[in-house]
Amino acid sequence: MTSYLSHLECTICGAEYPSDRLSGVSPCCGKVLYARYDLPRIRAEVDRDRLAERTPNMWRFAELLPVDDPDNIVTLGEGGTPLMELKNLEQALGVSNLYVKEEGLNPTGTFKARGIAAAISKGLELGATGFTMPSAGNAAGAAAAYCARAGLSAKLNLVDGLIGDAGRQAVAVAQEQGLFDLSTLKEPYRAEGKKSMGLELAMQFGWRMPEAIIYPAGGGTGIIGMHKGFLELLELGWIKGDLPKFIAVQAEGCQPIVKAFHEGKDTAEPWPNATTVADGLRVPGPFADYLMLHAIRDTGGTALAVSDADMIAAMYELATAEGIFACPEGAATLVGYKRLIAEGFLRKDETTVLFNTGSGYKYLQLIEGVKG
Amino acid sequence: MTSYLSHLECTICGAEYPSDRLSGVSPCCGKVLYARYDLPRIRAEVDRDRLAERTPNMWRFAELLPVDDPDNIVTLGEGGTPLMELKNLEQALGVSNLYVKEEGLNPTGTFKARGIAAAISKGLELGATGFTMPSAGNAAGAAAAYCARAGLSAKLNLVDGLIGDAGRQAVAVAQEQGLFDLSTLKEPYRAEGKKSMGLELAMQFGWRMPEAIIYPAGGGTGIIGMHKGFLELLELGWIKGDLPKFIAVQAEGCQPIVKAFHEGKDTAEPWPNATTVADGLRVPGPFADYLMLHAIRDTGGTALAVSDADMIAAMYELATAEGIFACPEGAATLVGYKRLIAEGFLRKDETTVLFNTGSGYKYLQLIEGVKG
Repeated sequence: MTSYLSHLECTICGAEYPSDRLSGVSPCCGKVLYARYDLPRIRAEVDRDRLAERTPNMWRFAELLPVDDPDNIVTLGEGGTPLMELKNLEQALGVSNLYVKEEGLNPTGTFKARGIAAAISKGLELGATGFTMPSAGNAAGAAAAYCARAGLSAKLNLVDGLIGDAGRQAVAVAQEQGLFDLSTLKEPYRAEGKKSMGLELAMQFGWRMPEAIIYPAGGGTGIIGMHKGFLELLELGWIKGDLPKFIAVQAEGCQPIVKAFHEGKDTAEPWPNATTVADGLRVPGPFADYLMLHAIRDTGGTALAVSDADMIAAMYELATAEGIFACPEGAATLVGYKRLIAEGFLRKDETTVLFNTGSGYKYLQLIEGVKG
Repeated sequence: MTSYLSHLECTICGAEYPSDRLSGVSPCCGKVLYARYDLPRIRAEVDRDRLAERTPNMWRFAELLPVDDPDNIVTLGEGGTPLMELKNLEQALGVSNLYVKEEGLNPTGTFKARGIAAAISKGLELGATGFTMPSAGNAAGAAAAYCARAGLSAKLNLVDGLIGDAGRQAVAVAQEQGLFDLSTLKEPYRAEGKKSMGLELAMQFGWRMPEAIIYPAGGGTGIIGMHKGFLELLELGWIKGDLPKFIAVQAEGCQPIVKAFHEGKDTAEPWPNATTVADGLRVPGPFADYLMLHAIRDTGGTALAVSDADMIAAMYELATAEGIFACPEGAATLVGYKRLIAEGFLRKDETTVLFNTGSGYKYLQLIEGVKG
């Protein structure tokens, strides 16, 4: 169980770079670097059907993750989250094959744990001594926990502004204090951790892909990572068939990707005066807009925006119908699903996975009557 | 994958009862009924080493759990929680082989999910149409979620009093509304769900037992269930050797088991004016006191009480040293561990598992500076 990481590759021009040193964005184009693996050798040497026997966290996919030495893995047991069929909602909505991937059961309560575990583990392996990042809350919570687990200290700076403002401070702090910047997709490995959500999904469906994935899109690492992961599994011959339609859900008050998608553009303009209760969706200018838009278009997906009120109503709906206490971002995917069924974009029997990216326990302020 | 449940047995006199109908306490003695399984047939028919290939939730141990028809399982993916070595704390404390079982990653954020999933699944299989129970919060949260998942509604009644007062109301409500009472150990199956913590531990240690388990003891189902589970595994020949010392940690403000243990008694007197910030430890008169005290004595364990202030300090310590956001009950086990090392009760290299029974996200009111 060791990584088959081979090199890094610019997502714009395809230029290759070595993966044996700390890397940020691509030196050539200033855009996202992808981690690349020796897939032919994995195909020859790794038996897909033995992965089920391993400890059920995301590191069971170690060959497709970037850490070379297993001793360098900083883990709190991230990944291995349940995939559940929503049978009560199926009945209520007159649909079938509706699932949720429950990422709220990750350490620190959100899917952010996966990306941060991968990036901090690999960062330390390559010599980083400390980390910085901008965050609306969930990623920072994960970063603090994984830094603690790695024996590093963590410090929180509250920034009066949006995540872009925090991002500029993170760059300054990184330079000033010699910290490695983990900003979304400005280093190659958080996306690799998120990729594991797709690898798990394929495995949980018996090495098949669902037909559609509805994902709450902020920075976009989830969609981008899973899209990349499915392509790797196809190349390995571990799965066959069509990629799932990637469907991005954003908040009405911050929908740069929705706008760009429907205008047919390859990149998104920053959304002015972004506002939503869903912290993870308050990303007005995602750095990897072009990769998100590509994943959506490449798979025949779509993008849509939902209101904060509808998200909160869907939090209650998921809780009362299925006992799942979702974050507003996760609940937004149910709103999106219902609309796409009503519009006929999705068939009523289309195998669809909603991603609940975090636990509702992190958003108690949205729940009526909770003692604060 | 089906249950090998054979019958129920009174824990006082050994009288046997059929397991094909809803049962509460034993009709003979009015005490706890244990579920019994056809262990010789499991031994002959089930391969321990194939369990690792199954979906990693507690139902991978279906043969040793009570539900006959897998279609009756009401699940939110409970169990399969991480076992982690606490390497930073080991270094800080000059010890080795110190682990935490992170039950905070269960659905609804606590270990209560396991017992409730088992009891509600089996209750519905046997014809129950609704449930009631007293709770300090975590069990009720789990019960509401699993009822929702089962398509039932849930209603919360706040009781001005302690859990015993709520228990009396639960009995009344059960009779009045025809609900099945899930009070701790007053029906046989919540303990079976909790038992899965022990089965998992054995499996995660490579089919060995740790030398000591430190557990926050309220109602006691965790200790009792795991003790029962290890005995079943020994009888199956799936593990060998000595049982781990069971060490119960209680709060200074509510320590009936600690008092009874040190006075050499077989049962506990109700603790007057119980008070502690650890909701799960505010159980002044646990119904299964005799089983808890037996598990502790049978294994050469002990019982000790810790202060609320120490628990809260240990929440911070686990978070900053290991990135684990524990509940106060879970943090209490670290306080207990340090004291038992200092007193020489535990060797510094003794393989010890601390149980974090729930997520700190359920106790944000204890954290300084959290926005309420």
